[in-house]
Amino acid sequence: MSESRQIAISMGDPTGIGPEVTLRALDRPGVRRQISPILVGDVGVYRRTAEVLKLPFSFAEWTPSGRLPRGAFPVRAVSELTGAECRPGRPTAAGGRAAHAAILEAVRLVREGQAAALVTAPINKANLVAAGADVPGHTELLASLCGADTVRMMMVGRRLRVVLVTTHLPLARVSRTLSRRLVFDTIVVAHRALRDCFGIGRPRIGVTGLNPHAGEGGMFGGEEKRLIAPAIRDARGRRIDARGPLAADSAFPLAARGGFHALVCMYHDQGLGPFKLLHFADGVNFTAGLPIVRTSPDHGTAHDIAGKGLADPTSMSEALRLAARLTRERATRRAA
Amino acid sequence: MSESRQIAISMGDPTGIGPEVTLRALDRPGVRRQISPILVGDVGVYRRTAEVLKLPFSFAEWTPSGRLPRGAFPVRAVSELTGAECRPGRPTAAGGRAAHAAILEAVRLVREGQAAALVTAPINKANLVAAGADVPGHTELLASLCGADTVRMMMVGRRLRVVLVTTHLPLARVSRTLSRRLVFDTIVVAHRALRDCFGIGRPRIGVTGLNPHAGEGGMFGGEEKRLIAPAIRDARGRRIDARGPLAADSAFPLAARGGFHALVCMYHDQGLGPFKLLHFADGVNFTAGLPIVRTSPDHGTAHDIAGKGLADPTSMSEALRLAARLTRERATRRAA
Repeated sequence: MSESRQIAISMGDPTGIGPEVTLRALDRPGVRRQISPILVGDVGVYRRTAEVLKLPFSFAEWTPSGRLPRGAFPVRAVSELTGAECRPGRPTAAGGRAAHAAILEAVRLVREGQAAALVTAPINKANLVAAGADVPGHTELLASLCGADTVRMMMVGRRLRVVLVTTHLPLARVSRTLSRRLVFDTIVVAHRALRDCFGIGRPRIGVTGLNPHAGEGGMFGGEEKRLIAPAIRDARGRRIDARGPLAADSAFPLAARGGFHALVCMYHDQGLGPFKLLHFADGVNFTAGLPIVRTSPDHGTAHDIAGKGLADPTSMSEALRLAARLTRERATRRAA
Repeated sequence: MSESRQIAISMGDPTGIGPEVTLRALDRPGVRRQISPILVGDVGVYRRTAEVLKLPFSFAEWTPSGRLPRGAFPVRAVSELTGAECRPGRPTAAGGRAAHAAILEAVRLVREGQAAALVTAPINKANLVAAGADVPGHTELLASLCGADTVRMMMVGRRLRVVLVTTHLPLARVSRTLSRRLVFDTIVVAHRALRDCFGIGRPRIGVTGLNPHAGEGGMFGGEEKRLIAPAIRDARGRRIDARGPLAADSAFPLAARGGFHALVCMYHDQGLGPFKLLHFADGVNFTAGLPIVRTSPDHGTAHDIAGKGLADPTSMSEALRLAARLTRERATRRAA
């Protein structure tokens, strides 16, 4: 398997379900066949997790040049946590630092070409901040590490792709946060990701309105005419096939039937309510706008069930498969 | 077939797709077998529509006591429009008046026990107002005719039922329109409809939050703690099994798997985005809070395709079947 198919997987918070869903995903034959992982984290954490899950896995330290014992998973070690520092369900400062270090190192491996893509296991945001990373979350940290200005969350499922203009805002602040520029930037980032990462020659992008029935000609709100339609015109001026503003309640059935390669949605619940109805367990978070391919499962650290073998590895499996597919297809396009 | 299974169907705007979807729905054997209709409207309109659709239907004037020619559909006549007054796609004031008169008469038939339920075909709101009905829409007109204080739109599909606290409001006004009382009233109306009309002994009602992740403990907005959670407590104090505030993106998958008999949602797109993804063609609008059973298809007059035989009668078929099922079950409960 060529180096370009190696996927760097950052450990995530060692006291959450990250290591658990990572190993259980790698235990699925459909995942195993497709990817060659580099686990970036803590050998001890992976060993203890495999023991708890009764997985017959072995691990060995990865180095750029070195060879591995047959069948061992390569681990790029960034920490040596004690048992007390990584007890499932009990977040610690040391665990937060290790999670942070794993992200930095995994990004480095991808940017230096030692891995083809990055898959991140979930982190504990409060812990990350305590570890000295002054960012609101995973995506912002990655954007800053990669020097990317405009990044957006793209939720990816077999039937729907959804890109959000705004994310974790109170609903009452959505209208005054929206701007023509913010909508335009999101359309452009979505377009480039679909074209450059997903290999879609001419992406069709649907853009929802903000208000019921996309404002019904101004009767139920003016943002469509004032901001969203102009942003769509700006994008079309750049030869992007963006359409809308669409009524949110008819845009999703249309997109799910293949009418659009992605929907740009104005706010969290407008996009994720429908998305998660179709892709609750198997949705993948892809970061549009980064210079590297990065995916992650669509769930958090779930400290309440960590270490109990209860966590569903489906979203992590899909995140790994998507990262593998995107890097494979990119390699094919480059070879062509 | 006993009188109690007769369903009054108001014609709707005669220049829209109402008469067309009504007759095409009645042409479906699965609908035909289950309901005994009284068409409330205009004999000429139904005759011309049947001709255009090449349906071998005959119509005869309905009177409370009179008999009908074998096989004829009974029409309670409220108008005698000329051809020019009801040309498909060309709304007229006379058509608006006829649509209005049909609603008044159909409600009278149900309230006086000559029909068991009401199904309304879509109207043109602007035309209804021009006809002298000083109300914003169909539902409000019915509430006023029936003397009902609190009515709510309930969207009904096989997998989801959704009740909206607010409907056709600009998104920017949703937060300041919500109140503890409005949420509480909606939960109560939903509960009564599920219990009394749908025959569900102990309805489980999910209530969504307003903000992403239902506010995430106050980080993304305070309406959950300030209004929605107290309204849920008020409802539980009345022995209503209401739960929440739920994150909208996890509430729908839960409800679709049977976790709730209905979801009470805060605003239009939050509820209808997910609903229409599962029930785009077959969703039915049920009015919760009326003293009569009323359903309607989940679409408008679609003047652009009226008279062309293109309109999909699925939602009207489902509206008729739901009205028939609810009245049948009510009769069974009363007999028991």
